[in-house]
Amino acid sequence: MGRHLALVGATGAVGQEFLRVLEQRNFPFDQFTLLASKRSAGKTATFKGQTYTIQELTEESFTGVDVALFSAGGSISRTYAPAAARAGAVVVDNSSAFRMDPETPLVVPEVNPQDISRHKGIIANPNCSTIIMVVPVWPLHRLCPIERLVVSTYQAASGAGYQAMLELEEQTREALAGRPITPKVLPHRMAFNLFSHNSAINETGYNEEELKMVHETRKMFHEENIQIAATCVRVPVLRAHSESINIRFSRPVTEQEVREALASAPGVRIVDDRTANYFPMPIESSDGDDIFVGRIRQDISQPDGHGIEMFISGDQLRKGAALNAVQIAELL
Amino acid sequence: MGRHLALVGATGAVGQEFLRVLEQRNFPFDQFTLLASKRSAGKTATFKGQTYTIQELTEESFTGVDVALFSAGGSISRTYAPAAARAGAVVVDNSSAFRMDPETPLVVPEVNPQDISRHKGIIANPNCSTIIMVVPVWPLHRLCPIERLVVSTYQAASGAGYQAMLELEEQTREALAGRPITPKVLPHRMAFNLFSHNSAINETGYNEEELKMVHETRKMFHEENIQIAATCVRVPVLRAHSESINIRFSRPVTEQEVREALASAPGVRIVDDRTANYFPMPIESSDGDDIFVGRIRQDISQPDGHGIEMFISGDQLRKGAALNAVQIAELL
Repeated sequence: MGRHLALVGATGAVGQEFLRVLEQRNFPFDQFTLLASKRSAGKTATFKGQTYTIQELTEESFTGVDVALFSAGGSISRTYAPAAARAGAVVVDNSSAFRMDPETPLVVPEVNPQDISRHKGIIANPNCSTIIMVVPVWPLHRLCPIERLVVSTYQAASGAGYQAMLELEEQTREALAGRPITPKVLPHRMAFNLFSHNSAINETGYNEEELKMVHETRKMFHEENIQIAATCVRVPVLRAHSESINIRFSRPVTEQEVREALASAPGVRIVDDRTANYFPMPIESSDGDDIFVGRIRQDISQPDGHGIEMFISGDQLRKGAALNAVQIAELL
Repeated sequence: MGRHLALVGATGAVGQEFLRVLEQRNFPFDQFTLLASKRSAGKTATFKGQTYTIQELTEESFTGVDVALFSAGGSISRTYAPAAARAGAVVVDNSSAFRMDPETPLVVPEVNPQDISRHKGIIANPNCSTIIMVVPVWPLHRLCPIERLVVSTYQAASGAGYQAMLELEEQTREALAGRPITPKVLPHRMAFNLFSHNSAINETGYNEEELKMVHETRKMFHEENIQIAATCVRVPVLRAHSESINIRFSRPVTEQEVREALASAPGVRIVDDRTANYFPMPIESSDGDDIFVGRIRQDISQPDGHGIEMFISGDQLRKGAALNAVQIAELL
């Protein structure tokens, strides 16, 4: 018997990206099962030139499955991921369901691959904005412990799914034609507009997306004391997130040290040409694997030399979701 | 002899907004002269139902003029604003030419109206992103001195002029049609993209727009020691700038104190409904006079209680430019 791979939620934006990433990376398997809710069961998907019929997801779907990639939302994962693990599969779950569960490793391979080994059947994939941030921030934290990080995001429509991407395009057509716009997928108009991330806000005043960036980063870094403040904002961009990051280190750190640490960091591409005014942009980081990092500079507001600022951009669907999960599966 | 008003640069995006603001506020004058470069001279503009022919700007244009509003770029201001002042006019200059000149007051009426009185013929209007920031930040600085401020901007196309706004719309049409895009006005594609502000970067690694936010704020606050770090980013929005602001105060400050200070601050509108997920958005702050402020919260990354975060949005052409200049002229 060879390796049996299953993908739960193949029809969404991330699910489709899973298929592309698995194909591009030539992920090794002998059997491939595509699963989805009853509604999508019976549809077909093409993978490596072969047509697969999507089967209905049930608790019995995972018999004989070695690795199950879940990309179908938290409630599906909460119900079916434990069933898959009981059936002997290792689940890589892209939902938020198990991320903060102390028994479940939360992994970005460039940051904490060693945590994979302590899994009990489920490994969680972090939230997209967290993944994109930690790839370049982790090598800096290793260079010198980070005391505090302030981040503001510029998040693409893709983070809200394929329908949100279509809605951005459709709304923009309406706006250009001067026709009225009625938001459906996201709560506010996206065309030529931006708004605070549409996740629930708790008593701290922070929304869930922002708190994920705080708590998931602490968990993966194994640093409960790193201070993080995030402001998450949706912008009219299709599929790559950008982030403006301000760091305070525990000692003075030079721009040169930061550049050297990033130059050798896996998954990072430095895009930082001050003369040409050329820096990370979502249209260029889209569809790629690397997190682009630029605007690297000593923070002038921290005269003691403890501060660095930078601006990053990475594909939300790839490294922010499907690619990271496939990288975890490759390490299994 | 009544009051004689002149406007230099009536045909640009800010110039057009000057005409709207002067009309809406019923700015008092008896004579109105519209001036522009040779290229635009002879064109007409409608104001309060009357047609005005734009005259060619020369050093002799300002004889008898009481107040001259300049909105035609730094080099025009450097040449003609001193000539206007010598002719006896008081210049309100929207360019960057005199902003950091120690002899020239730099004024936002909500912040430092008293500085107007020490003018020597020229009063400078700050940069748009600075104006939008200081309107809500100044009442907080009065509540408790600010030690450090970290800001990331989400700046509209209008900041680069009317042609940039048209370019954003035209590029977006091309992008939706799948046609190739060649940026002309701004250096990078704007449609469904964002990029670091297109101003020159000096040896600090900061661009001019960012350094304006630092130095102009210090000048107006009369505080050389306030530490400010800015990251300025252009986003595909037409005419309102937004800013994510993180503040460190010199003592613990509560969210409630901040809300009270902002509630009574002139030019500020609090838009901060956590339950409805409704916060400042550029499509709503556009065409209005107020700076919208929301996402007001205690900064969780500063456990000593010294920190506050907020997200703001304000019209770049109105309060960010024309309205602020007209408010200065009203105080004269």
